[in-house]
Amino acid sequence: MEMRAIVKAAARPGVALQRVPVPEPGPEEVLVRVKAAAVCGTDLHIAHWNAWAQGAGIRLPLVMGHEFSGEVVGLGSRVRTLTPGDYVAGETHIPCGECYQCRNGLQHICKNLKLFGVHRDGCFAEYATIPALCAYKVPAAIPPRVAAMLEPLGTSLRAVLELDVSGGSVVVIGCGPIGLFAVASAKALGASRIIGLDVREDRLSLAKRLGCDITLNPRRPETADQILEATDGVGADAIVEASGNAAALEGAFAYLRKGGRCALIGLPSAPVRLNIGPDVVFKEATIVGIHGREMFRTWTRMLQLLASGLLNVDPVVTHEMPLDDYEKGLALLEAGQGGKVILVP
Amino acid sequence: MEMRAIVKAAARPGVALQRVPVPEPGPEEVLVRVKAAAVCGTDLHIAHWNAWAQGAGIRLPLVMGHEFSGEVVGLGSRVRTLTPGDYVAGETHIPCGECYQCRNGLQHICKNLKLFGVHRDGCFAEYATIPALCAYKVPAAIPPRVAAMLEPLGTSLRAVLELDVSGGSVVVIGCGPIGLFAVASAKALGASRIIGLDVREDRLSLAKRLGCDITLNPRRPETADQILEATDGVGADAIVEASGNAAALEGAFAYLRKGGRCALIGLPSAPVRLNIGPDVVFKEATIVGIHGREMFRTWTRMLQLLASGLLNVDPVVTHEMPLDDYEKGLALLEAGQGGKVILVP
Amino acid sequence: MEMRAIVKAAARPGVALQRVPVPEPGPEEVLVRVKAAAVCGTDLHIAHWNAWAQGAGIRLPLVMGHEFSGEVVGLGSRVRTLTPGDYVAGETHIPCGECYQCRNGLQHICKNLKLFGVHRDGCFAEYATIPALCAYKVPAAIPPRVAAMLEPLGTSLRAVLELDVSGGSVVVIGCGPIGLFAVASAKALGASRIIGLDVREDRLSLAKRLGCDITLNPRRPETADQILEATDGVGADAIVEASGNAAALEGAFAYLRKGGRCALIGLPSAPVRLNIGPDVVFKEATIVGIHGREMFRTWTRMLQLLASGLLNVDPVVTHEMPLDDYEKGLALLEAGQGGKVILVP
Amino acid sequence: MEMRAIVKAAARPGVALQRVPVPEPGPEEVLVRVKAAAVCGTDLHIAHWNAWAQGAGIRLPLVMGHEFSGEVVGLGSRVRTLTPGDYVAGETHIPCGECYQCRNGLQHICKNLKLFGVHRDGCFAEYATIPALCAYKVPAAIPPRVAAMLEPLGTSLRAVLELDVSGGSVVVIGCGPIGLFAVASAKALGASRIIGLDVREDRLSLAKRLGCDITLNPRRPETADQILEATDGVGADAIVEASGNAAALEGAFAYLRKGGRCALIGLPSAPVRLNIGPDVVFKEATIVGIHGREMFRTWTRMLQLLASGLLNVDPVVTHEMPLDDYEKGLALLEAGQGGKVILVP
Repeated sequence: MEMRAIVKAAARPGVALQRVPVPEPGPEEVLVRVKAAAVCGTDLHIAHWNAWAQGAGIRLPLVMGHEFSGEVVGLGSRVRTLTPGDYVAGETHIPCGECYQCRNGLQHICKNLKLFGVHRDGCFAEYATIPALCAYKVPAAIPPRVAAMLEPLGTSLRAVLELDVSGGSVVVIGCGPIGLFAVASAKALGASRIIGLDVREDRLSLAKRLGCDITLNPRRPETADQILEATDGVGADAIVEASGNAAALEGAFAYLRKGGRCALIGLPSAPVRLNIGPDVVFKEATIVGIHGREMFRTWTRMLQLLASGLLNVDPVVTHEMPLDDYEKGLALLEAGQGGKVILVP
Repeated sequence: MEMRAIVKAAARPGVALQRVPVPEPGPEEVLVRVKAAAVCGTDLHIAHWNAWAQGAGIRLPLVMGHEFSGEVVGLGSRVRTLTPGDYVAGETHIPCGECYQCRNGLQHICKNLKLFGVHRDGCFAEYATIPALCAYKVPAAIPPRVAAMLEPLGTSLRAVLELDVSGGSVVVIGCGPIGLFAVASAKALGASRIIGLDVREDRLSLAKRLGCDITLNPRRPETADQILEATDGVGADAIVEASGNAAALEGAFAYLRKGGRCALIGLPSAPVRLNIGPDVVFKEATIVGIHGREMFRTWTRMLQLLASGLLNVDPVVTHEMPLDDYEKGLALLEAGQGGKVILVP
Repeated sequence: MEMRAIVKAAARPGVALQRVPVPEPGPEEVLVRVKAAAVCGTDLHIAHWNAWAQGAGIRLPLVMGHEFSGEVVGLGSRVRTLTPGDYVAGETHIPCGECYQCRNGLQHICKNLKLFGVHRDGCFAEYATIPALCAYKVPAAIPPRVAAMLEPLGTSLRAVLELDVSGGSVVVIGCGPIGLFAVASAKALGASRIIGLDVREDRLSLAKRLGCDITLNPRRPETADQILEATDGVGADAIVEASGNAAALEGAFAYLRKGGRCALIGLPSAPVRLNIGPDVVFKEATIVGIHGREMFRTWTRMLQLLASGLLNVDPVVTHEMPLDDYEKGLALLEAGQGGKVILVP
Repeated sequence: MEMRAIVKAAARPGVALQRVPVPEPGPEEVLVRVKAAAVCGTDLHIAHWNAWAQGAGIRLPLVMGHEFSGEVVGLGSRVRTLTPGDYVAGETHIPCGECYQCRNGLQHICKNLKLFGVHRDGCFAEYATIPALCAYKVPAAIPPRVAAMLEPLGTSLRAVLELDVSGGSVVVIGCGPIGLFAVASAKALGASRIIGLDVREDRLSLAKRLGCDITLNPRRPETADQILEATDGVGADAIVEASGNAAALEGAFAYLRKGGRCALIGLPSAPVRLNIGPDVVFKEATIVGIHGREMFRTWTRMLQLLASGLLNVDPVVTHEMPLDDYEKGLALLEAGQGGKVILVP
């Protein structure tokens, strides 16, 4: 049996829609009929075959895509936790189960981590196989296009949970999907003042809809002063860095308050220069890297927040299109529009 | 110069409106013109001169009342942090500044703690003196009647902060003001499911307005089952005990999930019988007592939550009346109505 | 093939040495040749078939015993994390892997928890089968008799880790093995003052060897005053309750400092009466139940502490004897001597 | 009345022993007869009048020195917490008491922080005045030369407390006094493996005496591999950066484990280049700046650890000399020897 899939075939730029065999689930895997998939910056890197992609250990040919929701339609021989018909979303991080991190509550940063859609075939296809462990059951009330975004939403929510924002101020640097999810999460968790930074007006406008009290252009020299003013001269209690822009991160300590916390999700392409003395030591700043969702504490909280209505990320979906229009989807992402593009197989 | 004040004059039941001298602030105190004061269960105990009051070390005669807001109108000689005209709310806990707790970040549970309105004259009067340390500046946007409730609101908020409720379920036992404040705080901080328990319908109806998803009567035998059902069979992530009812607390472990947390604010009049094995050890339950607000971390967050509009406790004020009607106010409290009674001097 | 085993055959007092078949490991289990097993109070309850045992869901006939170390000699078909020859210690808690707790980092308090040696055959035998997940690899430098005690040692270490004792004072109530392990753990983690309580002199003498600075008899009325004096009038920063004595726990709040923490491991046979107001609320005490070891964060730390020599529990083993002398071992435990009895098959 | 003091008189390199008036304590200050003072790198910067010193807001002329112990011999009019004869050590951080940080439990990083011996006269003199708040009472059992080092020791202990090292591995970068104090603190708190890095053999030899299990020269290319090997291939659980060497910090992420924590105390003179993606995000590293001691939680624990004998920093004092030999003391520091130089007025 065959299916349509977006395939990265060779170690050079470009991807193509192909007909490939429907995969067979291994003994501890499930076969999922994909209902919706979301496009991520990582997909763009792989399509372009940039420096990161070339060094990421990608196995070619690769069915692309790692953010998705769908219905379980086949079970490996040892799977007991799911049944056909279950509605699930995919956790991209596939842990080995045996390393130090896996044995110590940190499986989401497993030492031998494999990424769905990077190190094994992904979800820009009609069907996908995934370890049963990484197929998280989702309530029917969450529509497939939202369920397809739970993986990146979980990253942002995790960052916000680490920052302990209740009753405090948060600056979100970069209002692409990860930043927008951080804004929505901060709002749901009681951040009292949310400030969004981006160079594009359309993204800032989305950020306002998702809960920003104030939006600013980080290129303007008065930005730091405006943040200080908006926080009564104290500075921001917390920062979520979701832009991957080195200059933005280097400048963030100008408005982080003494004793503040900063979560890093964005991936700068070059080293970041930090003035450790004034920016970190004298400030007693805490900087924490966030690479994924705690498996599955973050998922539990995320689904309960969505179910309660306190967390609402519908507006992040700005485009929804058939899988076959993937080129248009990738182009939208490349053009830097803020919202999320959903592909429907 | 004289003022009107509600005075507990002697070691027997009863209080009276009297004319007494306007107090003089000590060197580190301020004189505040009271704009609004709130009645608390403690005031009722003092008025009735019950067993607790008899043993509480109360200095008679006593100007009653400890929850208030007002305007600074006089300064002690060494006060530099406030100026006349400042709008403040009162922190009841007066720390010694020298004990182990005061030197280790726990001044709100100072070993030699003195309580405003209990161990020294309080705020059911036209004017009150209070240490400058305990007069917390409040933004003008918060009306006096709300500012008068910040002390008990802070206790509830503190409890909810300790329980880490974001994306989780919370049961609030007892929907008097402390419970209602806990409901509102849990809502503001992203609790995904809030269940209120009380035996009175009018209180439960207020609880719904403040954010409860479900309200239940704890006297009905099916209550525990209903909570389990409302939490997908898992049990509640967290509990705020705000009733002081021993049976309610003893019964709470039937619906607390394994690994859950329970904050105790209510003061049972008799010992509580706990089945330590099944209720605490096997469940790995955490039980934490809450006696006040962290000085002043809790205040900071509280004011920022109020300013953001995420926390709204207006509906808790069910009655507002002139100070001279204090007898009516005490009677309302005694009748067990859920909301807060505000006295205006 | 047959082996010797201590078997609880019927629902009445008594156990017997029997010859039974060597068990076959299931697909995800390993077969372990037992090198040393340790006797626990739970074993005594099962032997006596007391009220707890009758209600514990024990499957009869039962090979008794749950604390052990040994060598892997057989593998189930799907086991990849262990190989024959591996030296392991047993984790008693067998999680289901599917419940809320298992999916949220709390598998050690799994909702459907099965206990090795209680709900399935245990280790008072020449061989035992156990899920591969629960066979924790141990360095060869740790002798079998110490490795056989890692399960209860881990419970005590976990309690001490929760209490954050570094540079603080700890009272350990009850100096049987669990209390002695808590003393040794507190010493290794930098508790600056360790006070052991027990009614028996021989236990207190062991407690001193393991690190107690002061030992006291809790039945003497001056005990609380002595603890206050030993803590400069402040009270104890932390308490480990390892006696299961209701009166001891009820009395502990007299010497816990305001803001102190109390970990409960002991299982009182009757309800404990707590004065919630003065003992928990006004004190802002934290009480936390401890039922086991975090899987496997606690094990990781424990083994590293043992390897470093900072944690040394050798003196806790007071008796070592052949498996066939099990009656003598149970009798020693019943007689209330403080140390641990090791059975060698 | 006059006294001898080491004075920085003018904005150029050099210091001199002068006779100056004994200072008068302000109303909330105490006059202390200095028993011992310790020389710190900061003193060297001030003596040399380097770039940092020129921008530090130093008030000239300045009595240098900020680490000391001594006896209270005079009281300001409002001081009630100390009496003449009290034996105290100095806390360098002088908080304003009014800013956000001071009101929220972070007074040690007060926004308007003044440093004793930098922004006001210090302790390289026969007498010094200091706010009563910053004169911490010390037990007589601690000798003056050790008490003079409590300020820097507290910084290192604080870093180690933040890293939660019990049962884990710690790398200490830089084995000058701050690093040596970190080694001793880690040992006292139960770190199971302590690895010290320095380019000088004499410092490494001191580090071994204070508790290092392994010492390495960071300039050798195999250092990272050796750390990985010493941690079973996992990497270090925690790092204390106490060298201020940018290259050392940049290289530290090669051996920090995924999920590890890094405390920064050292002050690099140039920006540090961090590869945020691989070093922080994918690793979920936590980086936390440490500028001082929590006032006074860290002091409380420190004194209790010293009193218990678990923390012993005597070997750090490598030189003790009369105040008049200050030039020799500064020269020793400049020569980069590892231990601490004590001046006795």
